[in-house]
Amino acid sequence: MTRPFNFSAGPAALPEDVLQQAAAEMMDWQGSGMSVMEMSHRGKEFISIAHQAEADLRRLLAIPSNFKVLFMQGGAIAENAILPMNLSRGGVVDYAITGSWSQKSALEARKYAKVNLVASNEADHHTSLPAYDTWQLSQDAAYVHVCNNETIHGVEMHALPDLAALGSKAPLVIDCSSNLASRPFTGGQDWSRIGVAYGGAQKNIGPSGLTLVIIREDLLGHALPITPTAFDYSIVSMNESMYNTPPTYAWYIAGLVFQWALRQTEVVNGQTLTGVDAIEARNIAKAKLLYDYIDGSGFYLNKVAPDCRSRMNAPFFLKDESLNAAFLKASEAAGLLQLKGHKSVGGMRASIYNAMPLAGVQALVGFMQDFAKRHG
Amino acid sequence: MTRPFNFSAGPAALPEDVLQQAAAEMMDWQGSGMSVMEMSHRGKEFISIAHQAEADLRRLLAIPSNFKVLFMQGGAIAENAILPMNLSRGGVVDYAITGSWSQKSALEARKYAKVNLVASNEADHHTSLPAYDTWQLSQDAAYVHVCNNETIHGVEMHALPDLAALGSKAPLVIDCSSNLASRPFTGGQDWSRIGVAYGGAQKNIGPSGLTLVIIREDLLGHALPITPTAFDYSIVSMNESMYNTPPTYAWYIAGLVFQWALRQTEVVNGQTLTGVDAIEARNIAKAKLLYDYIDGSGFYLNKVAPDCRSRMNAPFFLKDESLNAAFLKASEAAGLLQLKGHKSVGGMRASIYNAMPLAGVQALVGFMQDFAKRHG
Repeated sequence: MTRPFNFSAGPAALPEDVLQQAAAEMMDWQGSGMSVMEMSHRGKEFISIAHQAEADLRRLLAIPSNFKVLFMQGGAIAENAILPMNLSRGGVVDYAITGSWSQKSALEARKYAKVNLVASNEADHHTSLPAYDTWQLSQDAAYVHVCNNETIHGVEMHALPDLAALGSKAPLVIDCSSNLASRPFTGGQDWSRIGVAYGGAQKNIGPSGLTLVIIREDLLGHALPITPTAFDYSIVSMNESMYNTPPTYAWYIAGLVFQWALRQTEVVNGQTLTGVDAIEARNIAKAKLLYDYIDGSGFYLNKVAPDCRSRMNAPFFLKDESLNAAFLKASEAAGLLQLKGHKSVGGMRASIYNAMPLAGVQALVGFMQDFAKRHG
Repeated sequence: MTRPFNFSAGPAALPEDVLQQAAAEMMDWQGSGMSVMEMSHRGKEFISIAHQAEADLRRLLAIPSNFKVLFMQGGAIAENAILPMNLSRGGVVDYAITGSWSQKSALEARKYAKVNLVASNEADHHTSLPAYDTWQLSQDAAYVHVCNNETIHGVEMHALPDLAALGSKAPLVIDCSSNLASRPFTGGQDWSRIGVAYGGAQKNIGPSGLTLVIIREDLLGHALPITPTAFDYSIVSMNESMYNTPPTYAWYIAGLVFQWALRQTEVVNGQTLTGVDAIEARNIAKAKLLYDYIDGSGFYLNKVAPDCRSRMNAPFFLKDESLNAAFLKASEAAGLLQLKGHKSVGGMRASIYNAMPLAGVQALVGFMQDFAKRHG
C-alpha cells in the first residue's frame, strides 16, 4: 500500500513503522494479553513502557541528569498557564513575541505574572526574528520565554539566545512543540542555555493529548498556591508523572517514535550520522529542497527572512492567489494532503516534520513544478 | 485467540470489537490515507469522528440538549481543581465524603472555595453511604459534589440525592469516572437532578487522557480569573472542545466504544433491552453473581454495606490473608489479570466494567471456588 504524504501541521504524520507496530500489538502487547490501552498505569507492563520511553528520549536528546522529564496533558496551550503558575512566583516574566504562539503564551501569562515584552516581530507580520542583542530583558525576570519554532508563521530560532551573555540571570523557557526532537538543542546538544523545554507531542513526538515538560530540577518547588495539584511540576515530578492517570497510550506511541528516531541513520559527506543528528541532516535537506524551489520558482513565494525560516513549517503563497482552490484540489488528488495554510496567514503551509521522508518533499516539489507549468 | 480477562481498575479492559476495529483502521482510516492519530483536529475527517462520537454519547445516555458535552484532558484529578475554578465563584461549596476520591476532591477544592463537608463515611472506613436526609447542606453552596462510584472503596450511589427535596437549591455535581455509561443516570434517564457529570475516560469510555464533562449550559460563564483558558468550561464549550488540540485518538476510541455500547442488547424477562439499558442489566447480573458468591463462600468477604455495593468495583478479602500472594499468582496463571486491591484498602479488587463480559465474572467465580476448595 502506498500512503499519501500528509503535510498536516499537527496532529501530524507518524512514521509508518510506528503505526504498523501499534496495529500489530493492539490486541496483545508482547504476550501480556492486554492492549497497552487496557493496562493499569501502575502495573509492571506499563511501568516498563514508561521507563523505556523516558530513557530513550533522554538518549535521543542527550538530556542531562539534572533535568526531569514530565509526561503531562493539555498541550502547549494549557502550559501557557501552567508554566507561569509554576515558575513566575507572581513576579516579572520576560516574553519574546515571534508569532501567534508566543503571543498567545504572553497573553495567558498575564493572569499570573507581570509580563514584560522583550521583543516583537509583529510590525513585519511575524516574518523575521528580532536580533537577540536588541532584546529588552528585565533585571529580575523569573524566566525568559520564547517559542523557538512558530508553527503558524514558519519562524524558527536556529540558535537559542545566550541569556547570560545578554545580561540576564533568568532561565530560558522554550515552547518547542513543533521542533522538539527535530534537531539537537543548540550546537553540540548543549543544554546549558535551557531552563525548561516544553511542547505538545502532536508534531514530532506522537499523538495529541501528551505534553512533554523537560525542566531543570532546581526550578521545581515554586508553584503558586492556586496551581492545580495535577499541574504542579514538583508533584508531577515526585510521582514520576503518575499523580493523575497519564495518557498511557500516547506515552507508548511516543516511546515507539523515540525508538524509531534512535534507529535513524543518514550519511552526510561520507560520515554516518545517527539518531537526532541523522534526523537533523534529513530535515535540513528537506527544507533546503523546498525553500530553494519556492525562491527560484517565480510562481510561489515565502515571506519569512531566510535566516529564520522554519525547517518544520513552510508557509508559502501562490503569487496568483486565485489559483489557491485549484492548487489544493489538485494536490489532494495527487496524494499530498493538508496543505492549506493557517487561516490567520492564508495561502499554503507544508509541515515537514521528522516523519515526513525526503520522498514526500520531492513529491511536493514535483507537484508544485508541474502545477506551475500548467498554470504559469 | 482467547484473551485473558483483565480486572484492572483503570485504565481498564476495552471491548475486543473496538480494539480490532482500531487495529484494522490504524494505517488508513476509511480510505483517508491517514491514521486517526495523524489527522488535523480541524480537518473534515476528524471533525466527522468528533461529531459522531458526541451524537452517539448523547443518544446512549439521553443527554438533554441544554447540556454541553466537553472533551477535555487531565482526568478527574485535574477536574478536582478545574471544577471549583469554574463553578465556585470563590464561595461556599458542599462536598460529601464517601471514599478516597471524594476526599481528594474536597481537599483540592479548598484552594479555590470554602468547602463544607455535608457528610462522611470515614468513621466506618468508607464502607457505607450516609443517608441523604442526614446531609448537612449549606444554604448558599455554589454546588454539591459527590462521587457516585468510589473506585477504591467500592461504594456506589444507586440513586442520586434529590437536592431540591433536601432543601438545597445548588446544582449536583457528580464525579462519575468509574460508572459513567454503566447505567442510566437515576431512573428513567432523568437528568433533572444533575448539574455537572464528569469523569476520566479510562474505565468505561476509552483510553486514559480523555476527560468528559457534561454540563448544564446555564452553569457556564462563571470561571475565576485565574482559570487557565484551556480549562475554562465556557471557552472549551464555545470552541467545541478544540480551543487547545484535543486528545484526538482517545476521542476516536471513545467514539468506537459508544457505538459498541449502542449495539448491545440483552433479553431480560422476555424483553429485549438495548444500549445502556442492556449494559445495566448485564452489569447487575455480573455484580450479583460475584457478591452472592463472596457472601456465601465463607472463604472471602466484602465489607461494604449491601445497599451501596458498587456494580463496577468489588473489593474483597480472603479471610486468611496469608493466602493473598498465592491467590494472585494462581489467578494470573488462570488468565484473570490485575486482581490486586488498592494499596490503601488491601486485599483484592475485581473491576468489572462494561467491557467485562459475564463469562469473565463466571471465570473469576469459578476460579475463586476452586481456590477456596484447594485452600479451605
